[in-house]
Amino acid sequence: MNIAVMGAGAVGTAVLELAAQYGHTVTAMADSSSAAVDPDGLDPAAVLDRKSSEGIVGDADPEDALDASYDVLVEATPTTLGDAQPGFGYLEAALKRDRHVVLANKGPVAERYGDLRDLEADSEGEVRFEATVGGAIPVLSTIESFGPDQITTVRGVLNGTANFILSRMQNEGLSYEHVLAEAQDLGVAEADPSFDVEGTDAALKCVIVANVLQNGKEFTLDDATVEGIHELPASALDLADEDGQTIRLVGEVTGDTVRVGPRLIPENSALAVSGTQNIVQFETTYAGSLYNSGRGAGGPETATAVFADIGHLD
Amino acid sequence: MNIAVMGAGAVGTAVLELAAQYGHTVTAMADSSSAAVDPDGLDPAAVLDRKSSEGIVGDADPEDALDASYDVLVEATPTTLGDAQPGFGYLEAALKRDRHVVLANKGPVAERYGDLRDLEADSEGEVRFEATVGGAIPVLSTIESFGPDQITTVRGVLNGTANFILSRMQNEGLSYEHVLAEAQDLGVAEADPSFDVEGTDAALKCVIVANVLQNGKEFTLDDATVEGIHELPASALDLADEDGQTIRLVGEVTGDTVRVGPRLIPENSALAVSGTQNIVQFETTYAGSLYNSGRGAGGPETATAVFADIGHLD
Repeated sequence: MNIAVMGAGAVGTAVLELAAQYGHTVTAMADSSSAAVDPDGLDPAAVLDRKSSEGIVGDADPEDALDASYDVLVEATPTTLGDAQPGFGYLEAALKRDRHVVLANKGPVAERYGDLRDLEADSEGEVRFEATVGGAIPVLSTIESFGPDQITTVRGVLNGTANFILSRMQNEGLSYEHVLAEAQDLGVAEADPSFDVEGTDAALKCVIVANVLQNGKEFTLDDATVEGIHELPASALDLADEDGQTIRLVGEVTGDTVRVGPRLIPENSALAVSGTQNIVQFETTYAGSLYNSGRGAGGPETATAVFADIGHLD
Repeated sequence: MNIAVMGAGAVGTAVLELAAQYGHTVTAMADSSSAAVDPDGLDPAAVLDRKSSEGIVGDADPEDALDASYDVLVEATPTTLGDAQPGFGYLEAALKRDRHVVLANKGPVAERYGDLRDLEADSEGEVRFEATVGGAIPVLSTIESFGPDQITTVRGVLNGTANFILSRMQNEGLSYEHVLAEAQDLGVAEADPSFDVEGTDAALKCVIVANVLQNGKEFTLDDATVEGIHELPASALDLADEDGQTIRLVGEVTGDTVRVGPRLIPENSALAVSGTQNIVQFETTYAGSLYNSGRGAGGPETATAVFADIGHLD
């Protein structure tokens, strides 16, 4: 497949670097201010060298990447809320050209799912978005395999930054502020960590799961009840610890309800994953609970989900 | 889809009972000595009543089910080794009629994978077999999604009976013989437990994984190095326990090597699942390790995998 990549962050870069390993060719790549286009395939090293030395990926405009020759547009620009722009516009442009779209950007799927499905219905192109939930962990493809009707609840630890902070707070008895600073030093938390620690990121993932489970009804972030971990006192973790329990930022989708918040769970529960690991529990009608876990973030990890989606395209 | 079910054990029965929930119709069902056929769809309750009262599912011969009107043959007869009959013959008959085949029976996939793929290549029908490995746990579809090339090792606890026995031996400090008798009382172990406790069942699952991972080379049970848990002394588990470790019957597929045997693993390792739970670890090239876990056996659980396969058929 020929691929155009919108976004030159960790995920976009990994897609560019790994595409050849999966037998694909990247014919265009754009960051927020520039683009590189070559119908014969870009040279990943040259593009990334230019990005690091000059801050641009090539001499073309970002829109030129949208007009390039490709079968699949990989939309990996940063997640934005509300109108989900500019990502949504990129998706729209590709579908109007009857191209497939694979999203790593959560915005269009969490905030404008109905619009997205409407555009897809009028296009020869298909939209897939495994990479938006749980990095490399097969979450949406598992729901697709079982059939959304057969899953009663999806519950999980879906934000590695929050989980790293909670794990460290409990294991080392440290305060939220201390561990957050440490996580920022390690690159596990961003300079502005609010998206992760206030639960927004986990909530977006849950909203996406709700959209997939409840074919028909549309959910957005406004439909989620969200509480973060940023006001959690270390004493709460101490109390949990004394009782053989721990606290995790758990997201849950059941029926019409989407909730994210700190939850007390047994220390030996499957959901009590450590560090930046993510886990998703699927409660099924006939097969009990199933669990998928692994690295829920990272460039190559998320790119793996992008390539899995591309492999599922007709 | 119209379905014919060969085999009226736990899995075949669950497929018959649940088909309508998935929007499918069972038009034929056979046990080893009889069959029920109705092009308009069988009445599950009537068939199962007859099976329990008279020991047969209907007045027809088993072969009549093969000749019935169906889109998919679900092959759920008991696993047999070597020529994998009679299951392999049923698969062959369906493929020759250009019908799809979904297997819960491990024999044809573990013992005659090359023959199976040859027959499939000459047929309009497709063969799928998610239910042969790990019950409801998505193992083969996860390998399919990631791409076999991207997975370096598959490792897991794939036999619930052996795992139940090891968990109980360690937790209660009981002998193998004592726990086996208990497991037999509970229906977790069969009267002849050799298939489970000697590692054969786990090895067949690993051989199936090897066949899927190594497209081209064919593996059979003879290619696996297999050691069971039936000679494991309770003292080995005591020693492990003292060291914060446990013993699990672990199957591993890496490159050309297929091995099953008792392995020492840390007590807090993801692989140290309890009771009849199964878990599979996928080591990937770019996304670290991923884990899928859940109930690895049981009629409705395995039927869930059968319906997932049917959903993937074109």
